[in-house]
Amino acid sequence: MTNIPENTLDPVELTKALINHPSVTPVDAGAMDRVQQTLESLGFACERLKFREIENLYARRGTASPNLCFAGHTDVVPEGALDGWRSDPFAATIENGVLTGRGAVDMKGGIAAWIAAVSRFDNVPGSLSFLITGDEEGEALDGTKKVVEHLRQTGEVIDHCIVGEPTSSAVLGDMIKVGRRGSINATITVTGKQGHVAYPQRALNPIPVLVAVMAELDGRVLDEGYERFLPSNLEITTFDVANKTTNLIPQTASGRINIRFNPTHSGASLQAWIEEVCARHAERSGAVIEVKAAISGEAFLTEAGPFVDVIQNAILDVLKVEADPSTTGGTSDARFIRALCPVVEFGLVGQTMHQVNEATPVQDLYALTEAYTALISKYFKVFA
Amino acid sequence: MTNIPENTLDPVELTKALINHPSVTPVDAGAMDRVQQTLESLGFACERLKFREIENLYARRGTASPNLCFAGHTDVVPEGALDGWRSDPFAATIENGVLTGRGAVDMKGGIAAWIAAVSRFDNVPGSLSFLITGDEEGEALDGTKKVVEHLRQTGEVIDHCIVGEPTSSAVLGDMIKVGRRGSINATITVTGKQGHVAYPQRALNPIPVLVAVMAELDGRVLDEGYERFLPSNLEITTFDVANKTTNLIPQTASGRINIRFNPTHSGASLQAWIEEVCARHAERSGAVIEVKAAISGEAFLTEAGPFVDVIQNAILDVLKVEADPSTTGGTSDARFIRALCPVVEFGLVGQTMHQVNEATPVQDLYALTEAYTALISKYFKVFA
Repeated sequence: MTNIPENTLDPVELTKALINHPSVTPVDAGAMDRVQQTLESLGFACERLKFREIENLYARRGTASPNLCFAGHTDVVPEGALDGWRSDPFAATIENGVLTGRGAVDMKGGIAAWIAAVSRFDNVPGSLSFLITGDEEGEALDGTKKVVEHLRQTGEVIDHCIVGEPTSSAVLGDMIKVGRRGSINATITVTGKQGHVAYPQRALNPIPVLVAVMAELDGRVLDEGYERFLPSNLEITTFDVANKTTNLIPQTASGRINIRFNPTHSGASLQAWIEEVCARHAERSGAVIEVKAAISGEAFLTEAGPFVDVIQNAILDVLKVEADPSTTGGTSDARFIRALCPVVEFGLVGQTMHQVNEATPVQDLYALTEAYTALISKYFKVFA
Repeated sequence: MTNIPENTLDPVELTKALINHPSVTPVDAGAMDRVQQTLESLGFACERLKFREIENLYARRGTASPNLCFAGHTDVVPEGALDGWRSDPFAATIENGVLTGRGAVDMKGGIAAWIAAVSRFDNVPGSLSFLITGDEEGEALDGTKKVVEHLRQTGEVIDHCIVGEPTSSAVLGDMIKVGRRGSINATITVTGKQGHVAYPQRALNPIPVLVAVMAELDGRVLDEGYERFLPSNLEITTFDVANKTTNLIPQTASGRINIRFNPTHSGASLQAWIEEVCARHAERSGAVIEVKAAISGEAFLTEAGPFVDVIQNAILDVLKVEADPSTTGGTSDARFIRALCPVVEFGLVGQTMHQVNEATPVQDLYALTEAYTALISKYFKVFA
């Protein structure tokens, strides 16, 4: 399908090389060095940023604006059940046109395709850069989040960013992610007073208090959706007492909720709401209610406009597919990068991600390289 | 305080003898033989009934009506923390007028006092009988419940029954129990469909279903009370999911309720209500809801009338106390005996029951014997 120009990198060979570094979070296993050496050979200035045990890399070629950044991660999830794999998950193999190995689509293949695309350009009227982390699949505390903080502190300007996550659904290019919902977890612990069920007036049962709190939280319609977003959604993810004694009113009950929210809300506004509901129920019941909230990420949306157009047009030209600008799915490092610049995610077909026999057709790696190449060309035509 | 006639039994000596058999449920340790030998010496015909490992005894003297039965148990709860006892819990000691030992009030003292009272009567115009079990403090499956079944099958007629549980609250005779609430436990398990919190439409979260079920069950006012009974009360006693993963919608949630109910309800009517609520929520939500109900006992009330009068009058005459006819507290074997005849509970002060240093003043044992003696006299004057 493609004719690769002379002296450019082969995305398939680079994907295989990266897979062969078993970089299961937080282990790097030489993967970041491999990326850095490849980028240095293409003329990039590389800055390594190590936070605790995590390797991170920011690389840039050129000093002019605009600066188009590619973001990705070299770490992968564990291989899982080894005997389910048709070949060694950390020794990439190609059989019948399919490349198999952990990270093939999530997202060593995406990194390799973008680097291969970049290798086709001697110069661009602006700058190209890379933000690569080794902590996306883990707690994500020492990865992109800290690199973004570092770039803001040093005044580094990034104008737009492409994240190479495997966003395609059924065929390459059918979906890009222009936003993600935010996510907040809250653990709610109700403490009452233990006692015998025959003498409830001497006890304070925490369970009906937590039931009422959960019913109120779960009963609210958070919104009806927002632009490209589904309605925000709250799920009760656990509820625990662990009282084995039938005639005992227990002391404590605790539960946890998760809210996936669109830009109608912020993590702070939802946390304040949860705390207000709990405070009201605490006052009404006399129980003590403790709320521990953790905001995993804020909702964000990259609005329709020239940047999204560039990506959709490149996909349509090269892959003959209309890309759906979606906001579905879990969180990604785009939640951190949005603080710097508009960000859109676009990459391989994600069907096998996190599974055994993670794999991609070799042709998809070449086709993605073509699409990325067209994207870079169009980007500088529009923004330079 | 008392002058014990010649040739009658001493309730204190008999209490001590019974305590010295360490009959922690289901162990008998010779306690039942001691009771039987004592009753045989008083002319009682004894029938031993052994169900699985449990010793039970039905004894009767006389064949005429009316038949006044005394019910009690020789088994005791474990001694608990041994180093908390001022003396060996299974070697009764008297110090400063206080008899200490496991079972002193619950209820070897009560058995001894009634036997001592009976020893003062050569004849009564009717019959005296005993229903003594070794399984009241345990699961109570092989004790009074089975003896009552046996007595019904053999056509044995008991006209009235006194249960010698320690019903007195602050001073001997201040409280008798003329009824008890019923008790039902129900475990409710909701099964939905596991999934990722980011894709709730592909999952079915069982927790909000169980929250709604529990809220409806807990929200019902069961009744406003019934004669001498407090309002029936429902407690949620546990609620468990045990999902540690913040982004996972779990498969299953389960909870348990206990209802203490007055005669407004029956175990069957409450079970039917719980099942109806669950069936409705199952249909509404699409989840599968399983209910496992266990009725521990039905509510019962021995109405005011000549039998209760006899007991209250004996207490007033001998102890100079007005006995409160109460229905509070947990269940007792009276819940089984009520199927045979009217039953009232009256015994020692229960403050130390189930605790370390279970104890009774020696004077209370003599005073209870006097009160039981007056009760027997008055009973046959009224009913013979």
